[in-house]
Amino acid sequence: MSKTIGVDLGGSHVMAAIVEDGVIKDRAEQDIVDHAFDVVVRSVVDVIRSVTGSGKKDGGTAIGLGSPGNVDLASGTIRYSPNFGWHDAPLGAKLRESFDLPVYVGNDARCATLGEHTYGCGRGTANFVLLTLGTGIGGGIIAEGTLLIGNGAGAGEIGHHQVRATDGFYCNCGKIGCFEAQASGTGLLRHAIAVAPSFPRSELVSGKPEKLGSKAIRKAAEAGDVHALAAWNRYIDDLARGLANIIAFVNPEMIALGGGLSSAGDFMLHAVRPKVEELTTMSPRGQTKIVAAELGNDAGAIGAAVMAERGGLTTRERT
Amino acid sequence: MSKTIGVDLGGSHVMAAIVEDGVIKDRAEQDIVDHAFDVVVRSVVDVIRSVTGSGKKDGGTAIGLGSPGNVDLASGTIRYSPNFGWHDAPLGAKLRESFDLPVYVGNDARCATLGEHTYGCGRGTANFVLLTLGTGIGGGIIAEGTLLIGNGAGAGEIGHHQVRATDGFYCNCGKIGCFEAQASGTGLLRHAIAVAPSFPRSELVSGKPEKLGSKAIRKAAEAGDVHALAAWNRYIDDLARGLANIIAFVNPEMIALGGGLSSAGDFMLHAVRPKVEELTTMSPRGQTKIVAAELGNDAGAIGAAVMAERGGLTTRERT
Repeated sequence: MSKTIGVDLGGSHVMAAIVEDGVIKDRAEQDIVDHAFDVVVRSVVDVIRSVTGSGKKDGGTAIGLGSPGNVDLASGTIRYSPNFGWHDAPLGAKLRESFDLPVYVGNDARCATLGEHTYGCGRGTANFVLLTLGTGIGGGIIAEGTLLIGNGAGAGEIGHHQVRATDGFYCNCGKIGCFEAQASGTGLLRHAIAVAPSFPRSELVSGKPEKLGSKAIRKAAEAGDVHALAAWNRYIDDLARGLANIIAFVNPEMIALGGGLSSAGDFMLHAVRPKVEELTTMSPRGQTKIVAAELGNDAGAIGAAVMAERGGLTTRERT
Repeated sequence: MSKTIGVDLGGSHVMAAIVEDGVIKDRAEQDIVDHAFDVVVRSVVDVIRSVTGSGKKDGGTAIGLGSPGNVDLASGTIRYSPNFGWHDAPLGAKLRESFDLPVYVGNDARCATLGEHTYGCGRGTANFVLLTLGTGIGGGIIAEGTLLIGNGAGAGEIGHHQVRATDGFYCNCGKIGCFEAQASGTGLLRHAIAVAPSFPRSELVSGKPEKLGSKAIRKAAEAGDVHALAAWNRYIDDLARGLANIIAFVNPEMIALGGGLSSAGDFMLHAVRPKVEELTTMSPRGQTKIVAAELGNDAGAIGAAVMAERGGLTTRERT
């Protein structure tokens, strides 16, 4: 196996890694503080130079980069990214100007899915879904052994399917009740705010629940705080709806939960599994394992390196 | 191309056809009046004998049958079918006792998807979804050129993903707000009943809306009846939610609408398309054509014949 460079670009952080057989041999990272395209490009070029030693070929034979947003896979242009506020940002072209290496750009969650499927918890499965439960919800679907891309590289945008048609929260995308609005970390926070009127003496809110992070709410729920538990139960309910919908669409062998919130581990898994069973009515029950993802924050960079090795996201590798 | 026998088994009707290159050369049909397994098997055997002349090989080299329900593809056993009330019904084995030919059994909607994709409106597409809008909603997904099967042959059960979490109708499967409960013919009828109190002088209801078929409601809506239009608008709204969710999951090039209700044609398509655009926020808009299916009631038998020719649903034919 060849060494490739995997880059995970996020809204607040970029990490570049030298990856060999799914193992990160070296890494460099930088915070992203300015979302202007040229500034971000400079940071990306910097971290790649740091980790490869000026981008020479012995540092890796190709560069793969996972970015938020919808990506034109042929050119590596970000068609649009709500996180960065970009439209038609030629990220691939800019990196090709700086490095004499093949460059592949794909959606970050799809790269993470490729990473978990190739080297993480999804190894050997033909039907596998990864969800990253963070500020938003990213997703990727491996079906019949193939990473789904779709007609406009939009397959796997599971975070923007709707789980609450009328009584949901507003989503950043403009719709009501997207899976992401209901079951991301932001969703958990919104549930806590929504149920706050029922818990006037709760210390969890203290009038300013919006200052709390989703982690604090989750931990309070684990500790038995009634307000946090009410929010957590609503959160788990909406998470289960989305997972049951995934099963209705693709009937996978495994759904892996990654991202910050998945650190809740068994507290989340033990709560959500029976609810998913309850909502799974037409597929054989109990056939979809719901597990915590394995590669943690490295899934994106490892998957981007896999993409680079395969020569693109669209290569149809089959299990 | 070889001739194969395609059988479409429904809750009220069974049709067997000799199919060559997607063209039905001969057909035989029978009504199904009794859902007891042995009785249905007899009808299936009868129609196959009628069309093949006692099932001799010159009538076709293999038998493919599409049935409602979840099918164990290896054995051809119907694991369960709510329509027939069957559990572990060994349909494939029974047909093998009667005919000296290879027998393949698959879900009816997945067979119809294969039919429309191979010989109907989906020809040449790599990402294609068929929905059959009838009493229920059947579905099938072709993604990256492959018919999705899933871990328990449950992929494509799009009718049982949930589009209304709390304010939906009860579905036959036990859940609330399944796509099928909201956007099938039965769903349209339920919408008409639900909005009836607002239209006390409507002739459409006359106190007994449950005696009306969905076709009558659709036709009344086309004719401008305000009660029927109110129901139709709710119906279109829920249909659009499901279609937008399909786009979020698989971002197909085309979604084809088949089944009885799709005979509404442009009246349905012109209403639903802009609503789907509105609800499609993260995939590039306008990339999914929403069209009427082409093969009509023959899609199932033609697709079953394709399955027979390929030696099963699981054969991964790629475009």
